[in-house]
Amino acid sequence: MSLIENKLNTMGLSLPEHVAPAGSYLVGYQTGNLVFTSAVGPRTNDSNITGVMGLDCSIDDGYEAAQRTCLRILSNVKSIIGDLDKITHVVKIFGMVQATTDFNEYARVVNGCSDLLVELYGENGKHARSSMGVARNPFDGVVSIDAIFEVTD
Amino acid sequence: MSLIENKLNTMGLSLPEHVAPAGSYLVGYQTGNLVFTSAVGPRTNDSNITGVMGLDCSIDDGYEAAQRTCLRILSNVKSIIGDLDKITHVVKIFGMVQATTDFNEYARVVNGCSDLLVELYGENGKHARSSMGVARNPFDGVVSIDAIFEVTD
Amino acid sequence: MSLIENKLNTMGLSLPEHVAPAGSYLVGYQTGNLVFTSAVGPRTNDSNITGVMGLDCSIDDGYEAAQRTCLRILSNVKSIIGDLDKITHVVKIFGMVQATTDFNEYARVVNGCSDLLVELYGENGKHARSSMGVARNPFDGVVSIDAIFEVTD
Repeated sequence: MSLIENKLNTMGLSLPEHVAPAGSYLVGYQTGNLVFTSAVGPRTNDSNITGVMGLDCSIDDGYEAAQRTCLRILSNVKSIIGDLDKITHVVKIFGMVQATTDFNEYARVVNGCSDLLVELYGENGKHARSSMGVARNPFDGVVSIDAIFEVTD
Repeated sequence: MSLIENKLNTMGLSLPEHVAPAGSYLVGYQTGNLVFTSAVGPRTNDSNITGVMGLDCSIDDGYEAAQRTCLRILSNVKSIIGDLDKITHVVKIFGMVQATTDFNEYARVVNGCSDLLVELYGENGKHARSSMGVARNPFDGVVSIDAIFEVTD
Repeated sequence: MSLIENKLNTMGLSLPEHVAPAGSYLVGYQTGNLVFTSAVGPRTNDSNITGVMGLDCSIDDGYEAAQRTCLRILSNVKSIIGDLDKITHVVKIFGMVQATTDFNEYARVVNGCSDLLVELYGENGKHARSSMGVARNPFDGVVSIDAIFEVTD
């Protein structure tokens, strides 16, 4: 088992099973040593975290949704590169947070994804990041995140 | 004529004429073997598909808007690389759908772009994808899409 | 002093001091010869331009906010590559404009960033661009922009 997946398991976390994309596209694509992933949310085959920040969802709920979303992104990246140990650096994440127009603490929500990446990859897990609020995400997930990873062969 | 444009014509489709960007920017830029395009909508010099998903626009209308947007993106990419046959893979598309806060079937709309890319490029047309709802797009287009393409010299 | 910073000063502009990211992430990351930056707004340590386009903010205010945001992006990029003269081309910017659902003149706002890049870098400052309206930005900045730069060693 890879070092990263071992670390995940030590933290009591694991990669979710794949959820097939809803359209005619891929979970991600590698060009050169960059992997661009499709945006996904916290949904797995048998669970989801829905809700709207500022309305019916706490910061803790949002943070957990972003962490689960990170696991789903990593599961998707693994399906492309085979082994999560091949990630040499996280380049960027883009977080879309389902929120009321009054809510603007996106950072505290998307940190659920950023913190896990840093916990797993240390300095190499640090990344550029953009966050924004949206009215609705697909499947009503609290967050939807896409990412760019730098990988080795 | 290129194979891809020939295939387009066989499908009864063609590339629209250019619409100049509304600001001091480009329709796209190639760095290395990647082309990053500016977001565009279904607008051409003499037509547009406006409306809001969930309010006054059917899924079919949205799908067609995304297909026309794809043609406009391809027209822009051709102006950069000269020949659409030089696209070796579609890397990613990012779809912004003009929608009410209740609408969340972005995938069914943006498929209009994804399906055409796959029809034209086969397996190499498959791509990572992110979709979101927005309150308004420039020129009120139902969708606005930007893309990243992998190209050869 | 670098040529670009000298040009900035001649224009009566200067780079703002850094504002540390609000979460566990970076202001940007360089992979190969591309620098991906985190989205930032017009906020500095002692000023900000807040407001909502279409409600309480003029096009001129929005344009200035986008120009100040550009300066902050450049300040962040300098912290990564050391010298702004190393930018060989601007690849892309993505502008998120805080706006009412009726407003759609994003281009006129984001031009504040695009125009400055072209003034500083000439033809090499021209870039692909996507713009959209959002309900709220972090810290209520009128705009929030992220960017991709092509750089040399």
